[in-house]
Amino acid sequence: MASIPATRHVWRLIRHPEGDRFEEALRLEEEATPSLGEGEVAIRGEYLSLDAGTRMWMTPRTDGYQPPVPLGTPMPGLVLGRVIGSRSPAVPEGSLVRAFGQWSDISVVRPEASGLAVLDETVADARQHLGVLGMNGWTAYVGITEAGRARPGETVLVSAAAGATGMLAAQIARNMGCRVIGIAGGAEKCRVLTDDLGLDQAIDYKAQDVEAALAALPHGVDVYFDNVGGPLLDAVLPNMALYGRIAVCGLVATYAETGAPRGPARFDQILMKRLSVTGFFSPDFMHRGPEINRLMRGWLEAGRITLPFDETQGLENLLTAYGKLFRGGNIGKTLVRL
Amino acid sequence: MASIPATRHVWRLIRHPEGDRFEEALRLEEEATPSLGEGEVAIRGEYLSLDAGTRMWMTPRTDGYQPPVPLGTPMPGLVLGRVIGSRSPAVPEGSLVRAFGQWSDISVVRPEASGLAVLDETVADARQHLGVLGMNGWTAYVGITEAGRARPGETVLVSAAAGATGMLAAQIARNMGCRVIGIAGGAEKCRVLTDDLGLDQAIDYKAQDVEAALAALPHGVDVYFDNVGGPLLDAVLPNMALYGRIAVCGLVATYAETGAPRGPARFDQILMKRLSVTGFFSPDFMHRGPEINRLMRGWLEAGRITLPFDETQGLENLLTAYGKLFRGGNIGKTLVRL
Repeated sequence: MASIPATRHVWRLIRHPEGDRFEEALRLEEEATPSLGEGEVAIRGEYLSLDAGTRMWMTPRTDGYQPPVPLGTPMPGLVLGRVIGSRSPAVPEGSLVRAFGQWSDISVVRPEASGLAVLDETVADARQHLGVLGMNGWTAYVGITEAGRARPGETVLVSAAAGATGMLAAQIARNMGCRVIGIAGGAEKCRVLTDDLGLDQAIDYKAQDVEAALAALPHGVDVYFDNVGGPLLDAVLPNMALYGRIAVCGLVATYAETGAPRGPARFDQILMKRLSVTGFFSPDFMHRGPEINRLMRGWLEAGRITLPFDETQGLENLLTAYGKLFRGGNIGKTLVRL
Repeated sequence: MASIPATRHVWRLIRHPEGDRFEEALRLEEEATPSLGEGEVAIRGEYLSLDAGTRMWMTPRTDGYQPPVPLGTPMPGLVLGRVIGSRSPAVPEGSLVRAFGQWSDISVVRPEASGLAVLDETVADARQHLGVLGMNGWTAYVGITEAGRARPGETVLVSAAAGATGMLAAQIARNMGCRVIGIAGGAEKCRVLTDDLGLDQAIDYKAQDVEAALAALPHGVDVYFDNVGGPLLDAVLPNMALYGRIAVCGLVATYAETGAPRGPARFDQILMKRLSVTGFFSPDFMHRGPEINRLMRGWLEAGRITLPFDETQGLENLLTAYGKLFRGGNIGKTLVRL
C-alpha cells in the first residue's frame, strides 16, 4: 500500500456539456486518493481509452444503456495500468490490468464491478489491450459476425470507419472475405482505409454524396455496421440489399442532442427490404473477450489486423483528445498516455 | 371454356388516392373478360381478401416491397374461388383455389406468377383459406416465431390486434405460453380480445395512454408484433425489455403519407435496449404455407385458434369494406363475398 500516492488528479463532471464544449463541463482536480476498501484495488493508469459512447453518460438522460454520471463525480472510463495497491486476493500488486476506472492517474476499483482483467504481458504492444484485444475488438467482432451476420462475398459498409471500432469492424469483414466499404471524413482517412487497410472502397462523406455513391453499388449493402446514426443512416437505408442487416453499434450523431429526438426518416425500408436492425453493446459480451481474443491475436500477430493509435500525452490534455472523437480529428484508437 | 362469362366487373385504379378517399381513386367497370393465354386460368371469385398492405401499392412510390399498381389497371388482390376455365394442366377446372388475382368477379391469372394454390376442400369453413390457413396465418406465425423469436413466458404485444393478422399473432403467442397484450381501438374490440380470445390484457388506444399502460408492466415488452408503425411505435420503444424483438409486419399508419416520411423518434432505444427490429412480409414465405398450415389446422380444429369474418356482400360495395381497414371499423378478417 505504501506505493499509492497520497493524492491523485481526476476529471469530474461538473455540468452537462452542450455540444462538444467539454471544457465547461469537466474539471481536473487534485484530491486525496481514496483509501482502499475491502476487495478494492488501486491502478496507476498508463493509458486511458477515450470512447465516444461516454458522451451519452454525460447527459442527464436516464433511458440510455448506462445511467448518467452524477454531477460532481469522477468521469468513468476504461484504463490500462499497473496495480499499485490491492485488497483483492485475485489481483496481485504489480499486475497489468484493464478496468473501468476513472479519468484519473489513479483509479480505485472493485474488480468484479469494473470488468477488471489481469492482462497477458506477452502481447507485443500492450496498448492493443485497449484496441484489437479489448472492447473495440470485441464490439467489432460481435457486430460483424452476430448482429450483422456477415457472410463471405457480401458487401459490408462501415461508418466512422477510421475510428477504432470501425477500423476493426472493416478489417474483420475483409478477413472474412467480404467486400468492404468504409465511410470516413476527409481524403487522408479514406486513403488509410483503402491503401493501408485494403478496403475495397472508401467514401468521404465530407466531399461525396454518400447516398449517390451507395446507389451505384450493383446489389446494395448487405451489412451496415453503424457507429453514428443520424442523417447518414437515412442515406444508407434505401440502399440496403434485400434481407440486409444493420448492426447498431453507436449513435454518436445523436448523443449531444437536446431537443426532441428524431428517428431515421427511411425507417420504412426495414419493412420494404425485410431488414434486421440490431443494437448491441460491448459490456454484454465482456465475458467473451478471451474467446474472441484467440482469433484476434492470431490475426494481430500475422499482420492481418492492425489499429493505429492517436495518443495525447498527459491527463491535463485529455479534453483535447476527447474533442477529436466528435470533430473527426482522430484516426484509429484515441488514447491519453499518462 | 364455355362457362367463362363474356364480361366481368373489375375495380381499376384510376388515380392515386388521398388519405382514405378511395371512391375518387378506384372505379368499377364492366369489360370483356380477357381471353385465356396459354397456361392461364380463370377464377370465379367467391371471396376477395381485403388487406391494408395493398394501400401502399396504390401510391406512386417505387421503394415499397412491391412496385406500384399502374394507373388504369385492375387492382390486384387475393381471391378465393373456383376455376371456371383452365389452360394450365396443373389446375383442373372446378378446383377451389386461392391466388393473387384482381378485385373482380372473374380473375385471370398465371398460376406460377400468382401464388395459385389448389385448396383442401375438407376445411370446414373455406374462408379460413384466406385467414387462419392463408397469408394472415403464415404472416402471424413467422412474425411471432421467427422475426419476433417469442418464447414461452415472454410478454408479447400486438398492435392492430383486432385485425386479421393481429388476432392470429396474438393467439399464436397465447398458444405458445406467452403473456399477450393486444392494442386495439374501442371497448368492443378490447372486449373481444380478452373475453373471446383469452388475451391477458387489451389496451384501447383511443381511450388509454398506451405508453403509460406499457410503462406499468413489470418487465417491459419482449416481443412487439407491429402492424402499424407511426406514433404507436414511439409509445412502445421506451417500454421494450432488454434484448426485445420488434417484428415489423406493417406500417399502416404511414402508407397514406405524402410528405417527408418520419421515422420513430425513439429509434435510439434499439441501441439502448439492444433490440432487434426485423421486417418481414408474407410472399417471402408463401412456399412454407403447407408446413405452417399443419400446425394451424390442428389448432383450428381443436378450437385453439379462431378468426371471425367481417363480410361485405357484393363487389360494388368493396370500397366500403376496404375503408373499414383504415378507419378501424372491422373486427377480424375483412372479406367481400361475391
